[in-house]
Amino acid sequence: MDPIRLGIVGFGKVGKACAETLLHSKDLSLAGIVRRSESLTLPLAEAFRKVPVVTHMAALPRAEGALLCVPAAQVAGAARDCLQHGIPVIESSVLHGEAFCAYRETIHRLALHHEVPAIVGAGWDPGGLSILRSLFALLVPQGGIEETHRIADSLHHIAMVRQVVGVKAALCTEHRTSSGRRQRYVYVELEPGVDGDRVAAAIRADPLFLGDDTVVFPVESVAALEQGRGLVLERRSAPGSVAHQRLLFEARFDEVWTTAWMMLAAARALPGLRPGAYTLLDLPVRDLWGTQADQAVRAWL
Amino acid sequence: MDPIRLGIVGFGKVGKACAETLLHSKDLSLAGIVRRSESLTLPLAEAFRKVPVVTHMAALPRAEGALLCVPAAQVAGAARDCLQHGIPVIESSVLHGEAFCAYRETIHRLALHHEVPAIVGAGWDPGGLSILRSLFALLVPQGGIEETHRIADSLHHIAMVRQVVGVKAALCTEHRTSSGRRQRYVYVELEPGVDGDRVAAAIRADPLFLGDDTVVFPVESVAALEQGRGLVLERRSAPGSVAHQRLLFEARFDEVWTTAWMMLAAARALPGLRPGAYTLLDLPVRDLWGTQADQAVRAWL
Repeated sequence: MDPIRLGIVGFGKVGKACAETLLHSKDLSLAGIVRRSESLTLPLAEAFRKVPVVTHMAALPRAEGALLCVPAAQVAGAARDCLQHGIPVIESSVLHGEAFCAYRETIHRLALHHEVPAIVGAGWDPGGLSILRSLFALLVPQGGIEETHRIADSLHHIAMVRQVVGVKAALCTEHRTSSGRRQRYVYVELEPGVDGDRVAAAIRADPLFLGDDTVVFPVESVAALEQGRGLVLERRSAPGSVAHQRLLFEARFDEVWTTAWMMLAAARALPGLRPGAYTLLDLPVRDLWGTQADQAVRAWL
Repeated sequence: MDPIRLGIVGFGKVGKACAETLLHSKDLSLAGIVRRSESLTLPLAEAFRKVPVVTHMAALPRAEGALLCVPAAQVAGAARDCLQHGIPVIESSVLHGEAFCAYRETIHRLALHHEVPAIVGAGWDPGGLSILRSLFALLVPQGGIEETHRIADSLHHIAMVRQVVGVKAALCTEHRTSSGRRQRYVYVELEPGVDGDRVAAAIRADPLFLGDDTVVFPVESVAALEQGRGLVLERRSAPGSVAHQRLLFEARFDEVWTTAWMMLAAARALPGLRPGAYTLLDLPVRDLWGTQADQAVRAWL
């Protein structure tokens, strides 16, 4: 089978990680990179010198899918644009719950209308972690789940906070209580003379933070905080349930690479997908292995 | 939607756990219990007094699926029998790797021939743990995996060992090295005067243990060993890979209940499945939630 030809839209951290992985992949190939017109002339690393760089996915001939690696606020627009041109998309949104379902529904309708598939929320969270959370709930049907994020790059959130005037550096962590409420701690390193309250208000007013309980801490140095990023997910059976169970997942990970790898795994599921929007929960895990599916079943089942 | 009517074939630990869960389920219902003719008159717990008890699945009217909870050696026969009668099956086999693939292929052909679906390996391992292992490999593409089983009921293996003449009680543990080789430790409590070597030879000769490195330890008391059962699964990125990652899964669990719950989750995926054999890796996690799929996506994505 020929490799699946993929274009990368947006060449930030995740886009670069996707591109590097594609260079070494046997079953996926890099059709080209889509950048803003003002970035077109920016030099690329040696390895990408021969890769077409264009301003629109439609300019990449025979691309079979687009990996949307643009900032969160631009994902919906980029998705719509690709779908209108009949190009399947894969993205790693940062929405959850109702907001995610509404977004997915919008993409679903567009995808049906243009008769192409779209895979949404195919990153770390939502993404790989969603499969894990769902599996924990299946394995311990009656119980509570607790999720603790250590100081960690919440990529999209950090990108947003950094755009606030007066912010030199930022770090975001999140914590979900067992009742499901999300709390965000935002650590900001401010330019001299900047008003912390104004910055905090600007952050809380952004759609990415709306609805979350967001606490903003001005700190001396963000770099000093940046040690150890990770997550602990724990599910325990409820008191009085028939079996005492405890499942614990602990991860130390690089969110950029994990996001890129999950997006590429999702891309492997594209062939044969009917039009519509899919999350990773809608796809058999087997399909994420693409041409290696049979080996994966032998190895991991 | 009407509840999915399921029959339970075999009324051992897993069969009873399935039955109890079905009594309290809204979307699944207990069509009846299939027992050997010599067990037909055995009394059932009060809760099951009104449940039909028969000697063959075909005797349960309008059953939409059979949960095969018989000993490992009888699963293939029970599956064949149900499929021949056009009844979809769900089972939790204990095979892995090539042996599992060959078994699956046999069931697949039967299922296609009789035009019904079958879900195989839908328990803990293979089963829920297979999804987890596969996901770990997707999240850390270049790395090694290590699996350590603490002293734990390997249900089918214990059942086999207990049938060896001279064995009073038994406990089996397994350990998989990072090279993938499986080692089994079998602890046996022997009747007075029984030859430990003869027992060890009988165990190693059983198909369940063939191909595994099996070490048999005669012990004073198996009950004394039975503290803490669990599993640790760890995946680390390979040295030199682009990101340093470590994923750890730790479980303390009851294998009987977990197996039952995964079988029932698989049963929820039955409606709409086309004929053929499926593993849990072939089914979207969403489908394991049945009528609760939309809620599950909102909650766990």
